[in-house]
Amino acid sequence: MQAEIICVGTELLLGHVVNTNAAFLARELALLGFDLHHTCVVGDNEERLCEALARAIERSSLVITTGGLGPTLDDLTKKTVARVLHRPLVHDAATSAALKTFFGTRPYDGNQEAQAYFPKGATIFANNHGTAPGCAVTADNGCLVMLFPGPPRELEPMFRDMALPLLEKKMGASIVSFMVRTFDIGEGNAATRLGSLCEQQNPTVATYLGAHNEVFVRVTAKAATAEEAKALALPAVEEVKRRLGDVVYGVNVESLEEVVVGLLRERGEEVATAESCTGGMLAMRITNIPGSSAVFRTGLVTYANETKTRLLHVPSDMLARHGAVSEEVARAMAEGVRKDAGSTYGIGITGIAGPDGGSAEKPLGLVFLALATPDETYCCKMQPKGIYRGRNFVRERSAGKALDMLRRYLEGKPVQHELI
Amino acid sequence: MQAEIICVGTELLLGHVVNTNAAFLARELALLGFDLHHTCVVGDNEERLCEALARAIERSSLVITTGGLGPTLDDLTKKTVARVLHRPLVHDAATSAALKTFFGTRPYDGNQEAQAYFPKGATIFANNHGTAPGCAVTADNGCLVMLFPGPPRELEPMFRDMALPLLEKKMGASIVSFMVRTFDIGEGNAATRLGSLCEQQNPTVATYLGAHNEVFVRVTAKAATAEEAKALALPAVEEVKRRLGDVVYGVNVESLEEVVVGLLRERGEEVATAESCTGGMLAMRITNIPGSSAVFRTGLVTYANETKTRLLHVPSDMLARHGAVSEEVARAMAEGVRKDAGSTYGIGITGIAGPDGGSAEKPLGLVFLALATPDETYCCKMQPKGIYRGRNFVRERSAGKALDMLRRYLEGKPVQHELI
Repeated sequence: MQAEIICVGTELLLGHVVNTNAAFLARELALLGFDLHHTCVVGDNEERLCEALARAIERSSLVITTGGLGPTLDDLTKKTVARVLHRPLVHDAATSAALKTFFGTRPYDGNQEAQAYFPKGATIFANNHGTAPGCAVTADNGCLVMLFPGPPRELEPMFRDMALPLLEKKMGASIVSFMVRTFDIGEGNAATRLGSLCEQQNPTVATYLGAHNEVFVRVTAKAATAEEAKALALPAVEEVKRRLGDVVYGVNVESLEEVVVGLLRERGEEVATAESCTGGMLAMRITNIPGSSAVFRTGLVTYANETKTRLLHVPSDMLARHGAVSEEVARAMAEGVRKDAGSTYGIGITGIAGPDGGSAEKPLGLVFLALATPDETYCCKMQPKGIYRGRNFVRERSAGKALDMLRRYLEGKPVQHELI
Repeated sequence: MQAEIICVGTELLLGHVVNTNAAFLARELALLGFDLHHTCVVGDNEERLCEALARAIERSSLVITTGGLGPTLDDLTKKTVARVLHRPLVHDAATSAALKTFFGTRPYDGNQEAQAYFPKGATIFANNHGTAPGCAVTADNGCLVMLFPGPPRELEPMFRDMALPLLEKKMGASIVSFMVRTFDIGEGNAATRLGSLCEQQNPTVATYLGAHNEVFVRVTAKAATAEEAKALALPAVEEVKRRLGDVVYGVNVESLEEVVVGLLRERGEEVATAESCTGGMLAMRITNIPGSSAVFRTGLVTYANETKTRLLHVPSDMLARHGAVSEEVARAMAEGVRKDAGSTYGIGITGIAGPDGGSAEKPLGLVFLALATPDETYCCKMQPKGIYRGRNFVRERSAGKALDMLRRYLEGKPVQHELI
């Protein structure tokens, strides 16, 4: 079934806004099994929008518009859809009442009230995160036209809560998906290990490059009910986990740090950090998780040798003999912060993030990461090549690697996974 | 002059990639004075691309494509453009030699060599950040067609270095722009203060919402030469700075932390940080700047009361009497870390980032920030409302505010600017 997206807004044509709605909707439509052949952007111009709508409604079974539903004069999507479909705009008393309640004592005029008019016969999507409601209306040729507000924080929940059931009904199916998250495997390598899984149709298995350069694997199944779809998907999720092995850190979780904080909380344990090249990024990621105060009390950013000695008791002759970027110093940092903070675990990171400071013996991107535990201290060495030696990349990857070492230890898996 | 963008790639229609190229090109075209009426996305499908290209070339003076220039079979942009323009693809020996040098001992086959073919008469854009070159070719009707590779890190420098001069020539003008960066003013308030400046035509003045919720003001001028354009723009830049006042932290700089590190380096001074709710974000931003080791040695993440007392010597009776989130504790943290690190300045941040922990007396989002200097200690209180109380927002804003307090002090401006 062919679908099409029309994004309305001069701000998109001026480049003031990056069009994340198109990517969000495209992913959702692909999951539902729609074929998206076109997306386009038009400005707040009635003639051009009219032309784009007419063409789309003629050739597609589903047309989704974003933007142009607000209270200002250049918000003309509803009016233009009504014109193309030869439907009048009709007033909806319930929407009007809801808007007036929302505005309370603030000024409410005819422009605001315009948000309570919809093409005749439309199903109204209430907006629980803003003012302009969306709607769905079926054209005479059977094409379903759905209108959404432009702000992603309004569009995304409206799509999931109100449009998805209609679309599932149109496709005669329920969609369930699982996101398997990994650390320390490249997308090519992951695809090779998944092999033929990526070619099957229901459930589908696809790789994505996520935040922090992590590879995600999405497993999606379609069936008559959500329960049947879940039953279809779960064996594939297990097979993905089996093929990828211990690089998988979670399914349907938000981040590596969420998993690590969760594992520590379960065990009633704590971690403390000592960072050099990452400069606080590891502590920041841990404390990004609500409730992390139960497992994290102390983070030290020891950016100078003097600070490593003063706060972590790294011996100055060790620094002189091996240099700050060395396995010995990483271990001493991890053990030092663990002892100092009185925590269960200590992490030490020291490396050369660049752009200066590299040498033949200690090249740019060289990082040592140590994890001190009650029984022993583990150490990993990272030595990326080529474009992977950029300052941001090295810092991000080091913070992620440190979290992953701890995750592996807590899950009883080998801490020292070979690095890509 | 009418322009149009066609983004090619099934990955865009599947939502695997957010289309940042469209926003980048839209901004550049607006600056150049082109009218962008349409952008569209088509998959890797020759017929649909052919149709989109033919329509665009017929109605526009400039058509820009992104993607589909690589070595794989579904990279069909050049072939399709050649077909629409009725031009053969011809081999370019210089490109071929450059590609072979780039590949060195790695496999180089006919697919790679396909990247050395271009529509007859094309101006070739060498790719200094990847393999697939771009090109520009003029259609029989005078429409200029420009082809760029999909990856933004290849497209953006290629556009700036190679396409811009051609487009300036087409428009008969040089474009110069300046970005004025601010902290601690909302976009609406900035627009009000700029007033009629935002309505003038050459130079143009426009506000943008940048990273970290900072407001940027872009001043752009067009003239026959770059020098003349600069002479036109500079008085407007000065006027923008005058109207916005001390919320301006720099012009054509990369970030607030870059400015702060630069100011400290000039003065040969150092800062140390003690963070609670920001959890290392401030240290991370400072150490994100290459060369920051000259001005930053020590950062402490004191996430627990115990750590504040142990590392910063914040008296436990002060913590008991005023609570960890208090002006007294922020001041003690800043002074403690300054003394401990032996640095010129010390910064202390303590607050309630949420989602839990708020109370009537100390609501969610309440943050105290202190700056200890050789002469006195300054303290600011942040108490955001509504949607500005989200955990990420509070953390980001606190780290930025701390940097801005130091920037203001170093520039001899009032440290305690009223908060939005």
